[in-house]
Amino acid sequence: MSIDEKAVFLHKQWNGKIKTCAKAPVKSREDLAIAYTPGVAAPCRIIAEDKEAVYTYTLKANTVAVVSDGSAVLGLGNIGPEAAMPVMEGKCVLFKEFGDINAFPICLSTQDPDEIVAAVKAIAPTFGGINLEDISAPRCFEIEERLKKELNIPVFHDDQHGTAIVVLAGIINGLKVVGKDKEDCQVVVNGAGSAGIAITKLLLRYGFKHVTMCDREGIIGKDYPNLNWMQKEMTEVTNLENKKGSLADALVGADIFVGVSAPNIVSAEMVASMNRDAIIFAMANPTPEIMPDVAKAAGAKVVGTGRSDFPNQVNNVVAFPGIFKGALEGRATQITEDMKLAAANALANLVDPDQLNEDFILPEAFDPRVAQVVSQAVKDHIVR
Amino acid sequence: MSIDEKAVFLHKQWNGKIKTCAKAPVKSREDLAIAYTPGVAAPCRIIAEDKEAVYTYTLKANTVAVVSDGSAVLGLGNIGPEAAMPVMEGKCVLFKEFGDINAFPICLSTQDPDEIVAAVKAIAPTFGGINLEDISAPRCFEIEERLKKELNIPVFHDDQHGTAIVVLAGIINGLKVVGKDKEDCQVVVNGAGSAGIAITKLLLRYGFKHVTMCDREGIIGKDYPNLNWMQKEMTEVTNLENKKGSLADALVGADIFVGVSAPNIVSAEMVASMNRDAIIFAMANPTPEIMPDVAKAAGAKVVGTGRSDFPNQVNNVVAFPGIFKGALEGRATQITEDMKLAAANALANLVDPDQLNEDFILPEAFDPRVAQVVSQAVKDHIVR
Repeated sequence: MSIDEKAVFLHKQWNGKIKTCAKAPVKSREDLAIAYTPGVAAPCRIIAEDKEAVYTYTLKANTVAVVSDGSAVLGLGNIGPEAAMPVMEGKCVLFKEFGDINAFPICLSTQDPDEIVAAVKAIAPTFGGINLEDISAPRCFEIEERLKKELNIPVFHDDQHGTAIVVLAGIINGLKVVGKDKEDCQVVVNGAGSAGIAITKLLLRYGFKHVTMCDREGIIGKDYPNLNWMQKEMTEVTNLENKKGSLADALVGADIFVGVSAPNIVSAEMVASMNRDAIIFAMANPTPEIMPDVAKAAGAKVVGTGRSDFPNQVNNVVAFPGIFKGALEGRATQITEDMKLAAANALANLVDPDQLNEDFILPEAFDPRVAQVVSQAVKDHIVR
Repeated sequence: MSIDEKAVFLHKQWNGKIKTCAKAPVKSREDLAIAYTPGVAAPCRIIAEDKEAVYTYTLKANTVAVVSDGSAVLGLGNIGPEAAMPVMEGKCVLFKEFGDINAFPICLSTQDPDEIVAAVKAIAPTFGGINLEDISAPRCFEIEERLKKELNIPVFHDDQHGTAIVVLAGIINGLKVVGKDKEDCQVVVNGAGSAGIAITKLLLRYGFKHVTMCDREGIIGKDYPNLNWMQKEMTEVTNLENKKGSLADALVGADIFVGVSAPNIVSAEMVASMNRDAIIFAMANPTPEIMPDVAKAAGAKVVGTGRSDFPNQVNNVVAFPGIFKGALEGRATQITEDMKLAAANALANLVDPDQLNEDFILPEAFDPRVAQVVSQAVKDHIVR
């Protein structure tokens, strides 16, 4: 059976990839009297007196909502909340297995930003954090921004920040391999959706000076037509030389390419036109912007993709479980830019300098140290 | 330690009475590829084609939201969503342990009916059913009514209907014990909140002809001041003789008393004034309207309370797990009045005629047949 066939077969068999389990026993009348009435009134009263006690007496302390409106699911597009469920359940499995966090899928029947914000605010008392997932740009920016302002629990759009953190970790180590400094590097980010914009922002925050964004029509700059409000904001901090032209033009002399775009849109010639020892992150799924062997043959030194069957997989699972684990354990009210940078550095540092090489720049998804190290980095950067 | 002390100690230790558990393994790269990307896209595509497939490939089929705004929690009143969490988690434990249903607490940060309806509608794609809990009257009536109309999954306010079903089951068997017919019985329901009104409605639906409702100020009738809209509706179908007076007046000659009100408000004299072989359900918690020994000494034949330390406990746990089990397994879109009556009859019939007596009119909470029998009764009454 192919992976797809296995996935269909097993999803049918599972009938849900997560379930709820009772931690409190109810095998006797006394059990019932403690976990439910009348005993349950005692912790209720304590929380009524001091709302913070909800973190001590309930699951809130270690529970995340995985929220989607189904508007931008994987590469499938706007397939709606029901069809998004298998992805959100999968995410919840990863939260549990990699971060020991209770996560629950919340797929929304609305794609209106006001209604999404209202719904997430309404259900927030149950949760210690909100993981936004697969919400299309530019709505995702507004929704995340508003929820961060209006809620006192961490809100994190993983498609943006999880991806950005792992890409930055890979680039940090990639630069060690090729021996270049971030300040000098020309970076081209192709794809100006949620991931591309978040990656660009985090790279700038990390200290890159020269980042150019492209989309289907080529280099994005101030005169570029039809930008959404977030893309317009990005023109204030990217492509400061106001270059114009195609992706191919952008890549001439560039040191780093980051693709969150479409299959096969980078040619060997384009890679050959880049600076020596180029770093390529070709993350279109399942077919990357350029295949790793082609990129390497054309002169690239470090190549990462979104796929597990090539070296240097950019896999969010090394980031989000640890990010939330740290935020929840440290009772952070926000996941800040500093935490994201710290997480990226922690991930990069997990790769032993003796083992670091062009085909090993990122820790493995199943490296058992990952969530712990990332969560500690996040906790170390909580500001009270 | 007292029950309260144990409850505080254990709730702290549990730090959440439920957790999520993974059903899909993610121990290998192939596991990841099946439960998450790229394999997960296959079931997503199937659901995108046919929304109903969400019941086959996700947890929706067997998952209920336990929704509260914290406005009327146990006897504690309006303690808010955080303080309501231990109760809702407890309910989720009961759903799991008694009905093998995944239930997840959703405590809402709003008490505005419009916002509650909007929030529940927004999160509905995840869930196969909505259990409303501890929402104050009369808001609960409007909220349930609207959600039932606007959602195509079962919506059930357990404080109303769960209680009503178990009380009716008890009364059905109580009438067998005392040998009276429902048509002839004078019933007094004291307490005109969510439970009292739901009980009254179900008793009328079952075939009782003479029901009088009372509240703090006495007998409720058409001229009664300060009724909410639902209580006004009830004056169309109760107290048709338009009696006036106190609860004591109402009880003179009555056959059945149902209290969902306040401790110690029924005296021995009031019971003595009732018809011979009175049936008393004194469900104020933790102290009933009248203690069972006092009621019996005054002439009552059958006495039930909400407490597990007296005979004939009215415990919703014999109803809601089976109700939802049947509704979910049968893919009911509503929980109808017929289903409620069928559930009450099924519960009543579970008590073996040879064992039926004044101190054994309801099945035990831990009787393993309960959820199965109730769920079958519900399934048998699903109308397509």
